[in-house]
Amino acid sequence: MDIKTTFEELDKLFTSFGGLSQGGITRLLYSSEWKEAVTQLEKTFKEIGLATQFDDVGNLTGKLEGTKYPDEVILSGSHIDTVAEGGHLDGQFGILSALVAIQSLKEEFGAPLRSLEVLSLAEEEGSRFPYAFWGSKNFFNLADNKDVEDIEDADGINFVDAMHEAGFDFRKNTTVRNDIKAFVEMHIEQGKVLESENKSIGVVNGIVGQKRYTVNLKGEANHAGTTPMGLRKDTVVAFSKIATKLTERAEEIGDPLVLTFGHVVPVPNTVNVVPGEVTFSIDCRHIDQTILDQFAEEIEGTIKSICEQSEIEFDIDRWMDEEPTLMDDRLVKVVEQAAQKRVGSEYKVMPSGAGHDSQIFAKYVPTAMMFVPSIAGISHNVHEETNIEDLVKGIEVLKETLYELAYKE
Amino acid sequence: MDIKTTFEELDKLFTSFGGLSQGGITRLLYSSEWKEAVTQLEKTFKEIGLATQFDDVGNLTGKLEGTKYPDEVILSGSHIDTVAEGGHLDGQFGILSALVAIQSLKEEFGAPLRSLEVLSLAEEEGSRFPYAFWGSKNFFNLADNKDVEDIEDADGINFVDAMHEAGFDFRKNTTVRNDIKAFVEMHIEQGKVLESENKSIGVVNGIVGQKRYTVNLKGEANHAGTTPMGLRKDTVVAFSKIATKLTERAEEIGDPLVLTFGHVVPVPNTVNVVPGEVTFSIDCRHIDQTILDQFAEEIEGTIKSICEQSEIEFDIDRWMDEEPTLMDDRLVKVVEQAAQKRVGSEYKVMPSGAGHDSQIFAKYVPTAMMFVPSIAGISHNVHEETNIEDLVKGIEVLKETLYELAYKE
Repeated sequence: MDIKTTFEELDKLFTSFGGLSQGGITRLLYSSEWKEAVTQLEKTFKEIGLATQFDDVGNLTGKLEGTKYPDEVILSGSHIDTVAEGGHLDGQFGILSALVAIQSLKEEFGAPLRSLEVLSLAEEEGSRFPYAFWGSKNFFNLADNKDVEDIEDADGINFVDAMHEAGFDFRKNTTVRNDIKAFVEMHIEQGKVLESENKSIGVVNGIVGQKRYTVNLKGEANHAGTTPMGLRKDTVVAFSKIATKLTERAEEIGDPLVLTFGHVVPVPNTVNVVPGEVTFSIDCRHIDQTILDQFAEEIEGTIKSICEQSEIEFDIDRWMDEEPTLMDDRLVKVVEQAAQKRVGSEYKVMPSGAGHDSQIFAKYVPTAMMFVPSIAGISHNVHEETNIEDLVKGIEVLKETLYELAYKE
Repeated sequence: MDIKTTFEELDKLFTSFGGLSQGGITRLLYSSEWKEAVTQLEKTFKEIGLATQFDDVGNLTGKLEGTKYPDEVILSGSHIDTVAEGGHLDGQFGILSALVAIQSLKEEFGAPLRSLEVLSLAEEEGSRFPYAFWGSKNFFNLADNKDVEDIEDADGINFVDAMHEAGFDFRKNTTVRNDIKAFVEMHIEQGKVLESENKSIGVVNGIVGQKRYTVNLKGEANHAGTTPMGLRKDTVVAFSKIATKLTERAEEIGDPLVLTFGHVVPVPNTVNVVPGEVTFSIDCRHIDQTILDQFAEEIEGTIKSICEQSEIEFDIDRWMDEEPTLMDDRLVKVVEQAAQKRVGSEYKVMPSGAGHDSQIFAKYVPTAMMFVPSIAGISHNVHEETNIEDLVKGIEVLKETLYELAYKE
């Protein structure tokens, strides 16, 4: 079989479920398009000789049984749902690349020693209902049903009603699978690091931890004409000093530290009044918990010292504090060696700055992730795209990885 | 007569026209409260022996004729209108201080050599209708009637209808008075320079020029997690550098340069997206046109260089460019000497950072202004206040000034 042709046909088929005239897909959890997609996926799995199984909530697996260690499972896949007006690769490529890789391995080498499974997770995006990771959380029996019982989509349809309508229900079984020896997730980067460095493969060593803050500064609103610079308590100037200083420091500390002041609202926000108040957000992320914690101290210290100099009151609310998730060292090495073998030096070991199903899996089973480049870093958009050459390279590296894990002693 | 008691009684009387239960005044142009105030003012002028005259639009003068040079007029006053929920001193103190000073001069020294006139200008604030300086512009036949014919107040009442209802009309006479040898306006500072320097009197040497800008920066909106610092075109960071740098420069250049970034709106203004666009305002003012122009060049140069470093597109719209208005040198000296005589070193020569009727007058007649302190700099607010001792000192300095101008050869 030809990997490129097989993938392109599958991608075309599955992009039709929720496919949009302008390109891209809208395929929300438990919608009719979602139901059509998972139904076809089950059929496709069977066609290439995989034993399929839906769990209660709609996660789907397709298994190629191992000859020697059938109870040791090497799992690969991603989520089948998309955001509204999303692209055709976010999630879907993780499932189809695993499917094509396993199909190709089967053709070339026959049955593996360990079992290989493709996984389609029901939901990751949190796009239809205000709940994310429904698929992976159910996989590990982590979801609390109470959290979704009363939530509704934008049309007022209840989560549970939508789930029943699609033919699924809450998870019944409380036992969690203990046969998974490795989970490998392929995903598009959704950033432009690989593109800017001319790399084809990202070997993900972890998913960054992040802290998010809302900061409020209170100074004094004054007449912009009659208040000399020395008599001001100008909160926008204080914000500017904080943002400038901390951005310089983040750049000094270097990648993969990122720092964003995405939300800024001065009060009264008028041309001729010295702004007496400002509220702004801080989002900062790093793969290393110690560096992230140290930088958080710098954030708070810088705000404190600049505000004290300017006699401005400050309030710092850290409302998100997620730890980094490290991938499994041994698996990362396997992926890296596979990449080396298939694309030479065209790969980069890097963290993921965005969240993925792998962060749930990594807490329970050895997990690895790999990226293919996103053109211009665009994702969550119908223009999300990756060169077909890079997609094929991705499938080949995944195939190599799965071979290493399932066909070798 | 006792200046303090006389002023306090007048202030109490006139604060009742539009007076609010929580203190302060709402006395909008051509309202019933405004009409009551000017009617009482005409009566009060007559009671102390001044010859009164309304012009067509509602400016009111009260004249104490000079014995030797009756056709040389020394004019003093301010505006009778207030902003909505304004204080009892903004405008009103300029009229009442002139009234009390002239009454006191008359009692003490009899008739002056030159004529003394108190002036109540119909409107300065632009608070009821979107048109400011209606009083002073009509005084010099500068108002274009077409500009007010179609404007309305918040209740939909037409300007011309309101004017007729109050008993006034457009100006008929096109001849402008040529008998005014000096105009002296007393006003509250509406800032806190005098208070912070423990001064009682501000001798105003000019009204600052100002430039106002709207600046738009266009970078690139990116995912806050997946976009490394080096691949960003972050417009909020660029804005912060611009604001920090220009504020430092403004502080180096020193008083009376003021610089304000009052309005800042990032796009999309969301915590987890690198802001791809930001629009912000710049308001800068100085009394010296050359310094203001030079600083404007620094503003544009700084925006340009910071944006070029960050590969950010910029658009700079300078939509206001008002020249400074200098007060008359000779008159400023007269006021300064009067201040010296009455309050010793408790005065400060300073520019006005806000606009006043004097900026219209200064283009046509020798003009001077003086300030009394505003407690905490508060104005355009019912809590606007000045210590009575400072108000009395202000009246005394104005009296001394008018004596010098009207009673001396």
